[in-house]
Amino acid sequence: MKFYDCKTAPSPRRVRIFAAEKGMQLDTVQIDLGAGEQFGDDYRAINPECVVPALQLDDGTVITEVFAICQYLEEQQPEPVLLGGTPQQRAFVTMWNIKAEQQGLWACAEALRNSVPGLKGRAMPGPDDFEQIPELAARGRARIAVFQAKLEQRLADSEFLAGSFYSIADITALVTMDFATRLKIPIPDDCVNLQRWYEAVSGRPSASA
Amino acid sequence: MKFYDCKTAPSPRRVRIFAAEKGMQLDTVQIDLGAGEQFGDDYRAINPECVVPALQLDDGTVITEVFAICQYLEEQQPEPVLLGGTPQQRAFVTMWNIKAEQQGLWACAEALRNSVPGLKGRAMPGPDDFEQIPELAARGRARIAVFQAKLEQRLADSEFLAGSFYSIADITALVTMDFATRLKIPIPDDCVNLQRWYEAVSGRPSASA
Repeated sequence: MKFYDCKTAPSPRRVRIFAAEKGMQLDTVQIDLGAGEQFGDDYRAINPECVVPALQLDDGTVITEVFAICQYLEEQQPEPVLLGGTPQQRAFVTMWNIKAEQQGLWACAEALRNSVPGLKGRAMPGPDDFEQIPELAARGRARIAVFQAKLEQRLADSEFLAGSFYSIADITALVTMDFATRLKIPIPDDCVNLQRWYEAVSGRPSASA
Repeated sequence: MKFYDCKTAPSPRRVRIFAAEKGMQLDTVQIDLGAGEQFGDDYRAINPECVVPALQLDDGTVITEVFAICQYLEEQQPEPVLLGGTPQQRAFVTMWNIKAEQQGLWACAEALRNSVPGLKGRAMPGPDDFEQIPELAARGRARIAVFQAKLEQRLADSEFLAGSFYSIADITALVTMDFATRLKIPIPDDCVNLQRWYEAVSGRPSASA
């Protein structure tokens, strides 16, 4: 297996943390997104979508999309379980991971990609050019605050996002909170449960992966 | 189990088709989205996110998000397999389902919600109000065409989206193509592989669910 990564990007970090929790050492290739390496012919042959992460299996098959990659890794190395141990747990992990992606991580990406000068004409990841929409950047920032409030409410009732156990949903939300901090939307002081959870998950050795 | 549905909405249709393929009869409650029933106290107590579908288990637990619901149903009724039968198949099903959602279904939703007068101030599903962004409607329409071209390319090499077997990824893409047709972006005539696939998947009895 070969893992196509970019050390500075939020999405592949989710896979790095996931693998670190499992003690898996991935044979890793760095793709320099800043230098546009994802648009070069070499990487396009691996992933025509021109995004990281991607996982290439030994038979040449390429898996993209973080949740799909992590599902594959979980089957290769089941312990410790990060996608839930029972049908209900698995449904809750998937559900909270989707919420964290769609309501949190994509909101951060919208805020960033629709505002920074370096991404002019590149408002969506991938090979196709789309113009920035400034209102979408503003909406993204508003949605991050809504998502932080939702996490605060959930974590008042639950130790981790999907229940009493750490999972990929926590990984996605951790990466989202760090992304939001880079956008100068840190966790609000009055979100005490979110703060408590953030200290726990960011204090795990895997968080530095 | 109780399934909260809306007969006219694309997202719960994905679950209805999934259950029909498995021959599962779900105890179904219709939520009238047109009349705003999703914002009423009764449904808010079931799903504070005010969206359908939702699946309530017998112990009261509520699962939302289509993929999480379908994952749970697959564990209750494994045959016929719709989420993949091997680790690699499962990763491919998940990957193509995510692509179909993010690049197809959400593009349709953006096109619709940011343009129709009846959704003014309601550009995002859920309890929070967001203004429409007309440029986002236009971008959604452009993205649908990009997604159709991607499906055409994939289906030139593969019988179904994730391989030689029907899966939830096909269900998501079928619902997306029907949504796009409602938006007056039907499958282009020159997409012959996409047309061949569409005839096959929409001809299955489950498609009328």
